[in-house]
Amino acid sequence: MIKNPFQPYSDKPTTVDGIYSQAEVGLANRNSGILLETLALDVTPTGVHYLLNHFDVPLLDAATHRLEFSGSFKAPFELSIADIMALPAETMPVTMECAGNGRAGVSPRSHSMPWMYEAVGTSEWTGTKLAPLIEQACPDDDVVEITFTGADYGYDMGEPHFFGRSLTLAQIKELDVLVVYAMNGAPLLPQHGAPLRIIVPGWYGMASVKWLTRIEALTKPYDGHQQVKTYQFRTHKDDVGIPIQEIRVKSLMVPPGVPDWSTRKRFVPSGEVDLIGRAWSGGGVPIEIVEVEIANEWRTAILSEKKDRYAWQKWTFSWQAEPGEHVLRCRARDVNGNVQPLDPPWDQAGFANNAAQCVHVFVK
Amino acid sequence: MIKNPFQPYSDKPTTVDGIYSQAEVGLANRNSGILLETLALDVTPTGVHYLLNHFDVPLLDAATHRLEFSGSFKAPFELSIADIMALPAETMPVTMECAGNGRAGVSPRSHSMPWMYEAVGTSEWTGTKLAPLIEQACPDDDVVEITFTGADYGYDMGEPHFFGRSLTLAQIKELDVLVVYAMNGAPLLPQHGAPLRIIVPGWYGMASVKWLTRIEALTKPYDGHQQVKTYQFRTHKDDVGIPIQEIRVKSLMVPPGVPDWSTRKRFVPSGEVDLIGRAWSGGGVPIEIVEVEIANEWRTAILSEKKDRYAWQKWTFSWQAEPGEHVLRCRARDVNGNVQPLDPPWDQAGFANNAAQCVHVFVK
Repeated sequence: MIKNPFQPYSDKPTTVDGIYSQAEVGLANRNSGILLETLALDVTPTGVHYLLNHFDVPLLDAATHRLEFSGSFKAPFELSIADIMALPAETMPVTMECAGNGRAGVSPRSHSMPWMYEAVGTSEWTGTKLAPLIEQACPDDDVVEITFTGADYGYDMGEPHFFGRSLTLAQIKELDVLVVYAMNGAPLLPQHGAPLRIIVPGWYGMASVKWLTRIEALTKPYDGHQQVKTYQFRTHKDDVGIPIQEIRVKSLMVPPGVPDWSTRKRFVPSGEVDLIGRAWSGGGVPIEIVEVEIANEWRTAILSEKKDRYAWQKWTFSWQAEPGEHVLRCRARDVNGNVQPLDPPWDQAGFANNAAQCVHVFVK
Repeated sequence: MIKNPFQPYSDKPTTVDGIYSQAEVGLANRNSGILLETLALDVTPTGVHYLLNHFDVPLLDAATHRLEFSGSFKAPFELSIADIMALPAETMPVTMECAGNGRAGVSPRSHSMPWMYEAVGTSEWTGTKLAPLIEQACPDDDVVEITFTGADYGYDMGEPHFFGRSLTLAQIKELDVLVVYAMNGAPLLPQHGAPLRIIVPGWYGMASVKWLTRIEALTKPYDGHQQVKTYQFRTHKDDVGIPIQEIRVKSLMVPPGVPDWSTRKRFVPSGEVDLIGRAWSGGGVPIEIVEVEIANEWRTAILSEKKDRYAWQKWTFSWQAEPGEHVLRCRARDVNGNVQPLDPPWDQAGFANNAAQCVHVFVK
C-alpha cells in the first residue's frame, strides 16, 4: 500500500501541550478562523468569519432546494427559497462563536479542531423569523422539540449521520431564531450553508444548522448525534454531560503593533498605543465592563454602548507603552455578573474556553 | 511574567514528520485553505480561496487610496481607485497557488505555514492591464525592474519591511499582469488586498502583491526581502537560490465519499464512483493528460478542454470501487512534458511540492 503522507488516521493522536498531530493540523488547514486585526470592524469581512464544518460542504442548488416541515405538525408544508424570501425579512448582526474556540488552551487537549482565539465573527444575517413558520405548521399538542437537519453527512465516532440539532418549543419562542438566506447583503456562500441555514443568536455556533433541509416536530427529546454525543460539557468521557447552549462572556483585542511572520511575535513602538477590541456574552446579555491588564494591574477600558442585541461591543484603551516585554490581557464581565476566568475552565472536550486572552508584545 | 499559552516564540521549533509546533498551528489557524470538495466548481467560492498573509491585513480606505508610480519613470503619476476603474477593464479567471503548498509533505519540514494540498484556488479577477500603465509612466532607458509594494508591514528573519516583489520589464511584457480591484464580481475583500492588488497569472501567489500602494521603476535588480531572502529554491540555508516563479504542474481530486469528522477518513459505497478534479500548470501551459492510480495501475482520466488560459482544467474518472482500503493518486502532465513527481521534490523551505495527491478511502 502507498504511504499517504497526510492521513495517519490515528484516533488517539498525541495531544501533548504545544505539540500537535497531523490530523489536528489537517483540521486547522481545513477550518478557518477570524483574522484578529479585523476585530477593529463592526462586521467581519466576508470570508474572514470563522468556519467550522464537520463534513464536506454540500453544493446545493438554490433553484430546486426545498425546506420540508415534517413530523408531528398538523399542517406540514414545503418552502422554496423564493417562498422564504417572500416572507417578512429581517437583517440582524450576530456575533457567533464556535463552542470549540480556545480548545488548544485546555490541558490535556482533546483531539479536535485546535482553535486558539480565532473561532468567532460577526455577520449581518438576513432571513425570516422561524417562530411564525413553526406556528403556521401547527405542532401537535404533545410536541416537545423541533429538529433542524442539514444536508451535510458523514461519520463521527463511527456513527454516520446528517448534521442535526434541536430546540425546544420554549427555546424557539424565547430566542430570535432566523431562517437565513443572505450574509452581509449577499446570498449565503456554500461554506456558510447555502442556500439556507438557521441562526440561533446568542448560542454557540453548533446550533445554527447550515444547509437546512428539514424542520421536524418531535414528541420526545431529540437524540441526534450532534445533540447528545458531542456538544455537551463533560467532566469525563462517559459523563452524560450538560448541553452547551449560550455563549460564555468573552473579550478579545486586536494584537497591537506589527507581527513577525512565522513566530507571530508582536513589535510595538513605545508611546501611546490605542488598544482596540470586542466583547460579547451569550443570549444578547450586554457587557458591563472590559478591563485590560498591564504590568499586573487591571484597568478599565472604554466600552461602547450595545447597539445590536446579539452583536459584540467595541472597547478601546489608550496604553502608554514602555520599552520592554509585556503580556497584555483583557477580560469582560456582563451585566449578569459573569466574568471571564484567567485560567481555562475545564471540560473533557475543551469546549467554551473563555479564559482571558494573552497578547505578548515587545516594545522598543 | 504571565504565561501566554499560545505564543511560545521558538524560532527553531520541532519539525518532526507528523508532529507540529504551536507556532505552525497558529499559522494554520490564521491562514486558510480551499475546501477540496469545491474543486468540483470552476470558480472557487468567495471565502474559500486559499489565503496566505505574511503580516496583518491593512484596513485601507478605497475612497482615499492612491497608487503611486515613482522611481525612474519619466512621467510618474498617481491613480485613485476611481481612475483605475475608468480604464479598460478585463475579467480573467486565474488559478493561483501558494508557493508553500505541500510544505508539510517535504521532509525534514521547514518551519512555516504547514500546507498539505489546500493552498490553491481559482477566482475571477477584474482589473486593468498593467503593461499600458507602465508604458504611460515611461520608464527611463536604464530601468531593469519594476517593484510592487503593499501596505502590509512586519518582520521576517528580524528584518522589518513592507511586502514587496518585482518583475523585469520583459516579464511584464510577456505576462498578462492585471491591476485588480474586484474578485468574483465584487470589490476586493480586505484579506485579498482591498482596495488594489496585482495578479500575476501563472506564477505562484507571492508575485500577486496585495494592498498595492507603489509601483516603482528601478535601474538595478530589486533586493527586497521577499524577492531575494524568501521565495527562492534553496538546497541549503545559505544557498543564494533560484527564484520561484511559474507554478509547477499539479492536479488534485475531490476526496470521494464522505469523511469522518476528526480523522478525515473517507468512506465510499462500492460501485461506480465519479472522481472529479482539477489540473493546472504554470504560465498558462495547458494540461495534456491526467492519470489516476488505482491498485497500482495508472489510468487516463477524461480531461476537459482548456477554456481560459490561466485557469485550471477539469478532469473526471469513473471508478468501479471494490470493497476494501484503497489509496487513490492523481498526476498531471502538461503539453511541455512537465509531469508531477510521485515523491516530493526537495527544497530547503518546502516550496512548490507538486507530488501526486494521495487520497485514502475505505470502500464498503
